[in-house]
Amino acid sequence: MAQLKPPLLVINFKAYSQSSGKKGLELAKVAEDISKETGVTIAVAPQLTDLAFIAQNVEIPVLSQHVDNVNPGAHTGHVTLEAIKDAGAVGTLLNHSEKRVRIDIIDDIVKKARKLDLVTLVCANTAEVSAAIAALNPNMIAIEPPELIGTGISVSKAKPEIVTRTVELVRKVNREVIILTGAGITTGEDVEKALELGTSGVLVASGIVKAKDWRKAIFELIKPMMK
Amino acid sequence: MAQLKPPLLVINFKAYSQSSGKKGLELAKVAEDISKETGVTIAVAPQLTDLAFIAQNVEIPVLSQHVDNVNPGAHTGHVTLEAIKDAGAVGTLLNHSEKRVRIDIIDDIVKKARKLDLVTLVCANTAEVSAAIAALNPNMIAIEPPELIGTGISVSKAKPEIVTRTVELVRKVNREVIILTGAGITTGEDVEKALELGTSGVLVASGIVKAKDWRKAIFELIKPMMK
Amino acid sequence: MAQLKPPLLVINFKAYSQSSGKKGLELAKVAEDISKETGVTIAVAPQLTDLAFIAQNVEIPVLSQHVDNVNPGAHTGHVTLEAIKDAGAVGTLLNHSEKRVRIDIIDDIVKKARKLDLVTLVCANTAEVSAAIAALNPNMIAIEPPELIGTGISVSKAKPEIVTRTVELVRKVNREVIILTGAGITTGEDVEKALELGTSGVLVASGIVKAKDWRKAIFELIKPMMK
Amino acid sequence: MAQLKPPLLVINFKAYSQSSGKKGLELAKVAEDISKETGVTIAVAPQLTDLAFIAQNVEIPVLSQHVDNVNPGAHTGHVTLEAIKDAGAVGTLLNHSEKRVRIDIIDDIVKKARKLDLVTLVCANTAEVSAAIAALNPNMIAIEPPELIGTGISVSKAKPEIVTRTVELVRKVNREVIILTGAGITTGEDVEKALELGTSGVLVASGIVKAKDWRKAIFELIKPMMK
Repeated sequence: MAQLKPPLLVINFKAYSQSSGKKGLELAKVAEDISKETGVTIAVAPQLTDLAFIAQNVEIPVLSQHVDNVNPGAHTGHVTLEAIKDAGAVGTLLNHSEKRVRIDIIDDIVKKARKLDLVTLVCANTAEVSAAIAALNPNMIAIEPPELIGTGISVSKAKPEIVTRTVELVRKVNREVIILTGAGITTGEDVEKALELGTSGVLVASGIVKAKDWRKAIFELIKPMMK
Repeated sequence: MAQLKPPLLVINFKAYSQSSGKKGLELAKVAEDISKETGVTIAVAPQLTDLAFIAQNVEIPVLSQHVDNVNPGAHTGHVTLEAIKDAGAVGTLLNHSEKRVRIDIIDDIVKKARKLDLVTLVCANTAEVSAAIAALNPNMIAIEPPELIGTGISVSKAKPEIVTRTVELVRKVNREVIILTGAGITTGEDVEKALELGTSGVLVASGIVKAKDWRKAIFELIKPMMK
Repeated sequence: MAQLKPPLLVINFKAYSQSSGKKGLELAKVAEDISKETGVTIAVAPQLTDLAFIAQNVEIPVLSQHVDNVNPGAHTGHVTLEAIKDAGAVGTLLNHSEKRVRIDIIDDIVKKARKLDLVTLVCANTAEVSAAIAALNPNMIAIEPPELIGTGISVSKAKPEIVTRTVELVRKVNREVIILTGAGITTGEDVEKALELGTSGVLVASGIVKAKDWRKAIFELIKPMMK
Repeated sequence: MAQLKPPLLVINFKAYSQSSGKKGLELAKVAEDISKETGVTIAVAPQLTDLAFIAQNVEIPVLSQHVDNVNPGAHTGHVTLEAIKDAGAVGTLLNHSEKRVRIDIIDDIVKKARKLDLVTLVCANTAEVSAAIAALNPNMIAIEPPELIGTGISVSKAKPEIVTRTVELVRKVNREVIILTGAGITTGEDVEKALELGTSGVLVASGIVKAKDWRKAIFELIKPMMK
């Protein structure tokens, strides 16, 4: 977790054409440059097929977008925790609204990841689900109301009460887990609000990946983290 | 398809620890060397997380182990056909017994892959399923009775009638699709039998990946293809 | 199959509130009355939870909407072929566009159902998928382009070429399977066209279930079958 | 919840051939008779296909074994909360180890069930998952280590520390949820131990369904509840 010191920005490349293959590596390089310049923690979650390709070529923390709950072995088409580690990732996103996971599998993966010194960032769609996930002890939780994902309407500004209630319910169950805000984050003000509401950073995708100028978009978002 | 001229050997890396990350690249390099030395077509299907890492570093055909049926976009944790192409792959395995796929999705992916000039190698567990898949017009079909996968007992020797019947049923439906034999292939004799039974090559995983000497194991299998 | 003599009308109750519980039984009774009056084969596919409740109380053929690929045993929440038989059903729908199934599972279920003297009616979304399913030898196939389901725009009138091409591709693979037309069927003319195009009946849901007058709606559809 | 006053015995019929169709109704009738004779709460969870058939014919509480997360409508092969209510059930099991469910879906179903006055009994495989589920506020939780299910080795005797730890972690999160013990329960002593460890009853399947004498098997288990 040393590499993921909050406040932090996590960039999810999703399956966008703008972040695929060599373009994905380029985006990761821009993030790396800015992180070095500013000292702000920036992690990237490249497309699965680019994971080793990018992780072997940048020094900022790289996360997988998902892992499957299988051990190394005869599992064609599956992604293991061990494989993402061999690829050079420091951990993984899990249970994103676009790739939800069974509750017992989250429990299994969080426990296995801890043994392998890999970080888990588990997404949640409601305050209650955030609290449920907190009971499973991941390293980080991102609260992301799915109805706002990709809209450019940030949860921290449009529905701050969801973030506040998430922080409240999570803290009853787990005092240590790092909480991030996701969904609709596009401006520095969105990030500032997310930090004010008691979360330690943001999980962003389209707001950066689809921006015309990646450098400018990233700087806009990390400004409140540089104070 | 020019790159995948039969007879051919396809090596599926599965999720084995022996074929992950840098070890996966090393195995792909061995396959590349042998293919160049002998002229036999050898394709590799690395772990998803290593796809671009390996495809950017070898010149033999690289296949994905699986793709999801989504277009580029907001699909965290999914693998698109476009992403495997950007990664440098020439196509994909599909419907492996460890990663089965819905019938309508095979239809969709085969059609999309063709438009993108990507090759599809679709696995089948029975002669009837092979014929069904043949009706969907993929480039290649591999018949792999799941009960023999990983056993070292080859379908071509232990159950030749499955291969024969597969060829017969498939040819009623589709005269062009390339048929490969999979499951339990470990010796040159297994491969020889597979070619005799009317298939154009083999799909192999543990027989090579878990071998102590990759070079020796690959040479053993391609001997009958060099005649 | 004696009970399912074409031409036939299959009514899929789906999960509509209009066809649930006692209302479902009432609809099945209306279908039974009309079938007895007219001699036209009408089968019903009630909601899973009502299967035995309805099958024990009507004499027309009752189909399940889906089955899972497990044998009787420790499978909480699963529906077995044996259970639908014990419930009184004569067979099952499978692979409806709202409940798609893996290709190997269709193969398994068709084979098991045949041994248990249960009928399989497998849905397909395209002509190619219809041909693929035909290679698996179910008793019946229903071609249902999903984009027309529930629209009231019938495939037989709006896209007759899909039905024609389905019949053509299926017949190359399988001469015996009964082909039904589905999606958007609401008028007798839609049914008449479906029969003209070479199919043996229709699979209907909303066109009947959501009709204000079930009796009238069923009579409208079977008129062309009474000629 | 009035109908489900603890201590209680919940009998899961699973997909056993012994509890299917008319045999299922017979088993439910035996449970009903004993509940009336003794005053002990006994609930039954019949096979999905028998739900209305059984619920319409007994007066003890009937639960579904599973529900899908869809509203009434065009969802062929799905089971809605509304359909189980129309069938006569008072609620549903959810997330059984044989039918695990995504965490966000448990959250959705628990919330919807509450609005429909339906009871939720959510299964968990570990103490941590039990706590996570407790954060979602179902009516009941059953702790069932999957490795003991169907073994005849009861968790309450073989691994009492799992039950104790579950009660402890759940109570930190939720003071009201009823906790049941499951997995391997076959004797009155197993049940007695389950009550001593702080849970309010048991969830049993094979221990009763596969018993030669259902009446005797049920009496054996409820003895400790009659004190």
